[in-house]
Amino acid sequence: MTQRPIKESKGKLLVLTPGMGAVATTFFAGVEAVRRGTALPIGSVTQMQTIRIGPRSENRNPLIRDFVPLAPLDSLAFAGWDVFPDDAFEAASRAEVLRRHDLEAHKEFLHSIKPMKAAFSRDYVKRLDGPNVKTAKNKLELAEEIRQDIRNAIAQHKADRAVMVWCGSTEIYLEPAECHRSLEAFEAGLRANDPAISPSQLYAYAAIQEGIPYANGAPNLSADFPALEELAHAKNVPIAGKDFKTGQTLVKTVLAPGLKARSLGLKGWFSTNLLGNRDGEVLDDPESFKAKEVTKSGVLDSILQPEVYPELYGDLFHRIRIHYYPPRGDEKEGWDNIDITGWLGYPMQMKIDFLCRDSILAAPVVLDLALLLDLAGRAGRSGVQEWLSFYFKSPHVERGHVQEHDLFLQHLRLKNTLRIMAGEQPLTHLAEHDE
Amino acid sequence: MTQRPIKESKGKLLVLTPGMGAVATTFFAGVEAVRRGTALPIGSVTQMQTIRIGPRSENRNPLIRDFVPLAPLDSLAFAGWDVFPDDAFEAASRAEVLRRHDLEAHKEFLHSIKPMKAAFSRDYVKRLDGPNVKTAKNKLELAEEIRQDIRNAIAQHKADRAVMVWCGSTEIYLEPAECHRSLEAFEAGLRANDPAISPSQLYAYAAIQEGIPYANGAPNLSADFPALEELAHAKNVPIAGKDFKTGQTLVKTVLAPGLKARSLGLKGWFSTNLLGNRDGEVLDDPESFKAKEVTKSGVLDSILQPEVYPELYGDLFHRIRIHYYPPRGDEKEGWDNIDITGWLGYPMQMKIDFLCRDSILAAPVVLDLALLLDLAGRAGRSGVQEWLSFYFKSPHVERGHVQEHDLFLQHLRLKNTLRIMAGEQPLTHLAEHDE
Amino acid sequence: MTQRPIKESKGKLLVLTPGMGAVATTFFAGVEAVRRGTALPIGSVTQMQTIRIGPRSENRNPLIRDFVPLAPLDSLAFAGWDVFPDDAFEAASRAEVLRRHDLEAHKEFLHSIKPMKAAFSRDYVKRLDGPNVKTAKNKLELAEEIRQDIRNAIAQHKADRAVMVWCGSTEIYLEPAECHRSLEAFEAGLRANDPAISPSQLYAYAAIQEGIPYANGAPNLSADFPALEELAHAKNVPIAGKDFKTGQTLVKTVLAPGLKARSLGLKGWFSTNLLGNRDGEVLDDPESFKAKEVTKSGVLDSILQPEVYPELYGDLFHRIRIHYYPPRGDEKEGWDNIDITGWLGYPMQMKIDFLCRDSILAAPVVLDLALLLDLAGRAGRSGVQEWLSFYFKSPHVERGHVQEHDLFLQHLRLKNTLRIMAGEQPLTHLAEHDE
Amino acid sequence: MTQRPIKESKGKLLVLTPGMGAVATTFFAGVEAVRRGTALPIGSVTQMQTIRIGPRSENRNPLIRDFVPLAPLDSLAFAGWDVFPDDAFEAASRAEVLRRHDLEAHKEFLHSIKPMKAAFSRDYVKRLDGPNVKTAKNKLELAEEIRQDIRNAIAQHKADRAVMVWCGSTEIYLEPAECHRSLEAFEAGLRANDPAISPSQLYAYAAIQEGIPYANGAPNLSADFPALEELAHAKNVPIAGKDFKTGQTLVKTVLAPGLKARSLGLKGWFSTNLLGNRDGEVLDDPESFKAKEVTKSGVLDSILQPEVYPELYGDLFHRIRIHYYPPRGDEKEGWDNIDITGWLGYPMQMKIDFLCRDSILAAPVVLDLALLLDLAGRAGRSGVQEWLSFYFKSPHVERGHVQEHDLFLQHLRLKNTLRIMAGEQPLTHLAEHDE
Repeated sequence: MTQRPIKESKGKLLVLTPGMGAVATTFFAGVEAVRRGTALPIGSVTQMQTIRIGPRSENRNPLIRDFVPLAPLDSLAFAGWDVFPDDAFEAASRAEVLRRHDLEAHKEFLHSIKPMKAAFSRDYVKRLDGPNVKTAKNKLELAEEIRQDIRNAIAQHKADRAVMVWCGSTEIYLEPAECHRSLEAFEAGLRANDPAISPSQLYAYAAIQEGIPYANGAPNLSADFPALEELAHAKNVPIAGKDFKTGQTLVKTVLAPGLKARSLGLKGWFSTNLLGNRDGEVLDDPESFKAKEVTKSGVLDSILQPEVYPELYGDLFHRIRIHYYPPRGDEKEGWDNIDITGWLGYPMQMKIDFLCRDSILAAPVVLDLALLLDLAGRAGRSGVQEWLSFYFKSPHVERGHVQEHDLFLQHLRLKNTLRIMAGEQPLTHLAEHDE
Repeated sequence: MTQRPIKESKGKLLVLTPGMGAVATTFFAGVEAVRRGTALPIGSVTQMQTIRIGPRSENRNPLIRDFVPLAPLDSLAFAGWDVFPDDAFEAASRAEVLRRHDLEAHKEFLHSIKPMKAAFSRDYVKRLDGPNVKTAKNKLELAEEIRQDIRNAIAQHKADRAVMVWCGSTEIYLEPAECHRSLEAFEAGLRANDPAISPSQLYAYAAIQEGIPYANGAPNLSADFPALEELAHAKNVPIAGKDFKTGQTLVKTVLAPGLKARSLGLKGWFSTNLLGNRDGEVLDDPESFKAKEVTKSGVLDSILQPEVYPELYGDLFHRIRIHYYPPRGDEKEGWDNIDITGWLGYPMQMKIDFLCRDSILAAPVVLDLALLLDLAGRAGRSGVQEWLSFYFKSPHVERGHVQEHDLFLQHLRLKNTLRIMAGEQPLTHLAEHDE
Repeated sequence: MTQRPIKESKGKLLVLTPGMGAVATTFFAGVEAVRRGTALPIGSVTQMQTIRIGPRSENRNPLIRDFVPLAPLDSLAFAGWDVFPDDAFEAASRAEVLRRHDLEAHKEFLHSIKPMKAAFSRDYVKRLDGPNVKTAKNKLELAEEIRQDIRNAIAQHKADRAVMVWCGSTEIYLEPAECHRSLEAFEAGLRANDPAISPSQLYAYAAIQEGIPYANGAPNLSADFPALEELAHAKNVPIAGKDFKTGQTLVKTVLAPGLKARSLGLKGWFSTNLLGNRDGEVLDDPESFKAKEVTKSGVLDSILQPEVYPELYGDLFHRIRIHYYPPRGDEKEGWDNIDITGWLGYPMQMKIDFLCRDSILAAPVVLDLALLLDLAGRAGRSGVQEWLSFYFKSPHVERGHVQEHDLFLQHLRLKNTLRIMAGEQPLTHLAEHDE
Repeated sequence: MTQRPIKESKGKLLVLTPGMGAVATTFFAGVEAVRRGTALPIGSVTQMQTIRIGPRSENRNPLIRDFVPLAPLDSLAFAGWDVFPDDAFEAASRAEVLRRHDLEAHKEFLHSIKPMKAAFSRDYVKRLDGPNVKTAKNKLELAEEIRQDIRNAIAQHKADRAVMVWCGSTEIYLEPAECHRSLEAFEAGLRANDPAISPSQLYAYAAIQEGIPYANGAPNLSADFPALEELAHAKNVPIAGKDFKTGQTLVKTVLAPGLKARSLGLKGWFSTNLLGNRDGEVLDDPESFKAKEVTKSGVLDSILQPEVYPELYGDLFHRIRIHYYPPRGDEKEGWDNIDITGWLGYPMQMKIDFLCRDSILAAPVVLDLALLLDLAGRAGRSGVQEWLSFYFKSPHVERGHVQEHDLFLQHLRLKNTLRIMAGEQPLTHLAEHDE
C-alpha cells in the first residue's frame, strides 16, 4: 500500500476513559509519575522499546517513540466517567493498587480528575451499582449526552484531539443482534431502547461519531459489530479491541506458540484465576463471566490449529475458571496446569503460577493504545486496526479475517506496521546473507 | 543468494551416535515405532509440522517432510559407540525412559544395535567409566579408528551416506586452546596427545574428515572452534551445535522473548533443575557442570539485551542450578522463579514447574538434526548451520556472528531457510493488504 | 472404662465392597500382591506402623498388627457389587490405576471376583449408569436382596465373619429427613420407597442387620443418622464414616493444625482439584459435588476455631473447587493457595501442588478400616467409632459430639485407643522426668 | 516432679539481643505496635493462643498469657549489640521488612535503641563486617565487657531482670572442641583465645554468668556444649536453642509427621531456598552454610525413623540448598519437591512453595522465647529447656536425650509443660469416655 504522510502531533491529546477504577487511575497516576521523572513506564512498548531499522549490521535501533510521531506524554490530559463519584485520588486509594506513598505524591493531580456521570445500567453489570449515573429518556439521548461530555471535556482541557479507551467493568455476554447489523438499525435501536445495546456500545458510538478513536479493554460486545465498523469507516476513525491481554492469557499466547513451534502435543490445559478486585467481583456473575470466558477460550484453538494438527491438539481439554477471591485484592493469580505430550506420546506436565497485578499490567496497555490509535488516526487509518491485536485477548478483526493470537506474530506485525508507516522496510529475520 | 539444486535422497542414511544411552536409544526405538505405525514422532518438526507457502489466502501448507526432500524414516539405519557394551535394548532397559511394554515391542531391532568401542577418557567425564573403550597410542590414532568404524558401519549397512549426532555425556568445560586455532595446529595436537583435545572432538574431526555432517548435542567444546570450522568448509560438510535445547532453557527462550515483547522488566530469574539420570550424575561433577552452566547462562543476556535496555534488564540476577536427584530418573524437573517488574516498577512473580523427560524431549531433536543436516549437505551448504539454532541452547555461529536465542526468531529463520532452499519466498507475517 | 477381652480372629474375614471400581479393585489387587510378597502395603497404618508401649526408654515398639489381634491378610476374602458387570480384572484394567504388568500378575485372582447386581438408581448418581442392577418392588425388598447377597457370599467363601466398606460413587447431597430419625421411621420409609433413602443407606442397613461392621468411604449420607446409629447399637455393630481422607483434605488437616500451633493467621485458602476418573465424572454433577463440598468445607472451621480466634481466622475466605479433568485419569491433582498472616498482620503465601493418585491413597484406607472395624466388633465396641476419625474427611461422631479434624489428634487418639484395647496405658508425650 | 511455685513477674524485663538487624528490629517495632494497640502479635503463641484445662466438657480455655504468669508486654525493655552503629530505626529501615509507614509510627521509640559495641570477628562470619566492634586483649576480657554491658543496660533501664536471645548472623560451623568439655576448660580457652570459641559463645557465657536466661536463634554452636550446660545448672539459669524454626523447616516438621502418620513412604525431598537479606548473604559463605545445613538436615531422619521404617524411609534422598538471591530481600521463598510412595510403591509428588518473610516469622519466636525463658527462670527451671524444642530447627537437648522434631509432639509437650507448671493435669487427647 502507498503510505500516506502522518499528521504532526501538536497540542494536547485528551485520553477519555469510561470507567475510573483500578486500571484507569493506575494509568493516570503512572503517566504523571513518569512525566515527573519519578518512575518508569515499564510495560509500555511505545515508551520503552526500540525498533530495528534495516539490517542488523546497520545498527539502527531507535526507540519507537522517537521513530514514529507519537503524542508525547507531556501532551496528555485525562477525563473519565464512573458510576461512583470518587475522584481519581479517592478511587485509586480504594483500589489499593499503588502504594499510599506513591499516590500521595500525585494527590493534587489525581484529585483534579473527577468522573463525569456514567451511562450505566445494572442490567449489563449485575454486581455493580453506584449513584453517579445519567438518566435519559432513551439510549440515543444517553449517547448524545456522552457526546456532549466529550465536547465539554475537550473544550475544558483545550485539547487538540482525543482518544477513548474503555476501562470499565465487563458487561454481560451479548450476541450481536439485528440492531448491530447496520448503522441504521443501530440508531433505530438506540431510539427504541433495544436491550441488545449495552452502555459500552453507547460510548463507542459517541466516540466514533465525534471522530475519536476507540479501544475496548473489556471482553463484552462494544464496537465489534458491523454497525460501528461501518461508522468508523464513514467517520475515518480507527478502532481496536477487545479485552486487554494482561495476565494468564498473555502467558498462554507466549507459551502455546512455543510448544507448537517444537511440535509438542497438548492433552489438557487447565487455567484457574484468583481475582479479588472489583473486576473479580463483577466476573463472579455468570453472565459477565461468560463474556470473559468466550474471549479467553478461543485463544488456544486459534494458535494451535487442531484442524491442521489433529494428532497434536485434536483432543485438547481446555478449561478456564475465574474465581472471586477477595484476600488478594488487585494482586491476581493465574495458575495453569498443562498436560503435554512428547516423543511417542509420552506425557509431561507444566505448572505456571503467575502472581501478577491486574492494573499494573493493564495501565501501560491503556497508554500504548491511546498513543497508537491517535497515531493511526493521524496516519489516516480507519476502521479495525488489526495490527494492534498484540494488546488484546480477543483481537477485533475485519469481517472474514482470522484472529491472530500468537504474541510473536502479533509483535512482528505491530513493528512491521510501524516500519511501513514510517516508510521503512518490514523485516523477515533471515540472516543477512540469506536475504 | 542463488539457490543450488538439492541432491535427491536415495538409499540408506546411517545415523551415527557417539553415546548410546537414554537419548540415543529412545531415538532408535522411537523411529522404529513410528515406522511401524504404532506411535507418533511428536516433537519432531520435520515429521509433524507444516510450512506455509505464499500468502495465507492461497492456503498452501504442506508438511515440511513433503516440502523439502528429506530422507524418509524408512531409509534410516543406526550405529553408535558407547563405553558400556550393552546393546540398545539393554541400554534402553537400564535407562528406564520408555515403558517396558514399548521396548519389548522392538526388542529384536534394538538388540541388533551394538555399540562400537568408544574413544573415552575419564579425564573429560569424571563421573563415568566403562569397559568398552578404545586404546591407541595417541589421539590421532584414536580418530583414525573412529574413521575406520564409520567406514565399516556404512559398508555393513550398505548406506548411501551418514550423519553424526553427539549423544554422549557432557565433557568438562574447556576453553579453546592453541591447538584449536587451525586445522594444522589441531592435527599436531592429535599427534602430541594435547590434553585440550577431548574425545568428542575426535568424533567431530573423524566425521568431518569422512565428509559426514556433525551435530553436537552436549554443551562441551566439540566442533565449535576454528580448526574444525575450517575443515568443515574444506570438506564441504555442514556442522551444527551445541547442547540440545530441551527442558528449562526451551521454556526460557519462549518466555523471555514474550516478556521482552511487552517491555516488562526482570529483576531476578532463578532456575533450579532436578535430574536423576546418567546425565545428572555426570553434571554432578563441577567441571562438567561448568560446561553446562556456560551454555545455559548466556541465553537471557542474549535475548534481553541489557545493554540496550538497562532500565529493564540491567540488574537482572540470573542463577542456574542443576542437582543430581536420583529418585526421579530420566523424568527431570525444572523449577523457575521469575521476578518481574511492571508499570512504575511494581513487582510481580512467576513460577514455572516443568515436569519433563530429558530423553523424550531430546529424541525428536536428534531426528530433526540428522535429517536437516543431511538435507543441508545435499543442498551444498557447508560450515556452521546457524539456521539450526532453533535446536540448541548455545547456537554455534560463524566467528563474529551474534547468537540468536529467541525461539520465535529461530523458528522463523528455520522455516524461511527451508522456503529459500525450496525456491520459495520468505514470510514477513504482515497482513496481506500491507505486503 | 473397663476393657473387655477381644475375641480371637479365626477363619476367613470377608470384605464386602459396594462399588467395584478403581478404589476397590486397587485394594483387592494390592492385598493379593502383598500376600504374595511382591509389593508393600504402603499407606496402611495397620500393616506398616509401629506403636510405642510404655516410656521411650523401655523401647517397646511392636508393629500394630502384632500388638492387637487383627485379621491377617491371608484370611481376607473379597466380594462386591457394581452397576457394571465387569469382574475385578476388567474393572481394574479400565480404571488404569495399576500398571498393566502389575494387574497381569494377579489376573486369575482378579477375574474370580465378579460383581453382584447393584442396588442403584440414577436419581442419586446422575452421571453414572450401568446394566448390572437389581429390580425390586420397593426399597425394603432391595435391602433384603442385599442381605441375601451377603449371606450367600459368606457361605460361598466359607467366611467366619464379614465387614463392609462403601467404595461406590458419591451420591447426591441429602439432608437427613423424617425417615432418618428412628429405625421405625426408616423401615417405614423403606417400605414406602421414601426418596430420602438412597442406595448406600440400603447397603448400610443390610450390613448392620446382618451384624456386619460398616464404613462409608463417600461423602453422602449413608449410616450417619439416628435410625442406623440406633440399629448399630441394637445389633452391637461398629460403624464409621465418612469420606476417605486421601488427597487435598489430608494435607489440609496436616497443615492447618501446624499453622494454628504457631498462631499464624489465615486470610484465604483456595483449593482446586483436578480429577479425571469416574469419581471426577460423578462429581461433575452439582448435586454430587455438593455432598463432597460439604464434607470438605467444614474441615478448616473445625480445626481453626474461628470463634475462639476471631483475629486469626475470623475472616478466612475458604473455597473448594473440584473439576472433572479427563487428561489425567486417576492421577488427581490438588492445588492449594493459602494466604497467611504473620507478625503485625504482614501477609505471606503458600502454594501446595499435590500430584497424587486417588485409588493409591484410598486402597490402604479400605484395608485399615476393614481390619479395625472387624477388631472393634470382636472387642465388643458398637455404634460410631470416633477413634477412626483419622481416616475420614468428615468424621461420623455420636450425636452432640464435636468432630475432630486435626490429623495429629486423630492419630494420637487412634493409637491411644489401640493401647487401651490392649490393656496398656495411653501416652501424653511428656518427657519422662515430667511424667 | 513436684512443681515449685513460680516467682511473680514484677518490674521491667530487659530483652537483650546480640544482633540488631532485621529480626531484632522487627521484634522491637512489633512489640511497641502491639502495646499501642495498632497491630496484633500474630505468630506469638504466648500472646494469641489459648490452652485447654481439664476435659473438653469443662470448657476452660484461657489464653496462655492469662494462665501462666508471663511478663506483660508493657514491662519489656530492649537493648542490643551490633557491628553496625545504626540505631533500631535506621537498621529497620535498611532491612526493609516493615513498611515505611509502620516504621515511621514508632520512629522515636526505635531511634532510642542504640546498639552497644559488638564482640565480633570476621573469622566466624566471613561475609559481614562493621565498625561498631569491641577490642580487647583476649576473649575472656571480651566476655567481661559484655557482662559489664549487661549490668549497665539493666541499670539504665531500671530493669528487674533480663533475658538474652541471639538474633545475630549465622557463624561458621564449628565442632565442639576440647575447650567445650567443661567450664574450666572453657574459661582457660577464653584466656588463651582459643579459636574454637566464637563470639556467640561469649554472649552465652556472659549471660549465664549474669544469671540471665539465654536462647540461640542461629544454627551455630553457642550454648549447646557441656561447659555452658554445666554453668547454666550451676547458676540456675535456663537455656534453649537452636536456630529459630521459621520457614521451610517449620513446614517440613508439620508435613513429615503427617505423611508418617499415614505410613506413606518417601523417596526424595528436595528443598531449595531463596533468601535475599543479610542472612542470605552470610549463608552464601560455605562455612556459615554448613552450620545451617547441619541443623536443617537432621530434621527428617529424626521424624521419620528410617531405622524403624527402612521400607518407607530407608532410601530417602534428602537435599537442602540455600541460595543468596537479592531481588527478594527479606521475603524469602522455600520450594520443596517431595517424592512420595503409596500403596504397592506407586509414586506421587508434592510441591510446596512457601513465600514467606524471614523476620516476620522470627519476631514472634523471639518474643515467646524471651517470655517463656523468663518464666522458666522464675519457676526455678535451669539448664536445657527441651520443652521449648517447638521453636527450634535443631532443639538443644540434654546430653543423651533424643531430639524431638515433630511439631505436634513439640506443641503437646510445650502445652503440657505449661499445664504442669501451673499445677494442672497434662492431656492425652483421648475421648473423655475412654479416659
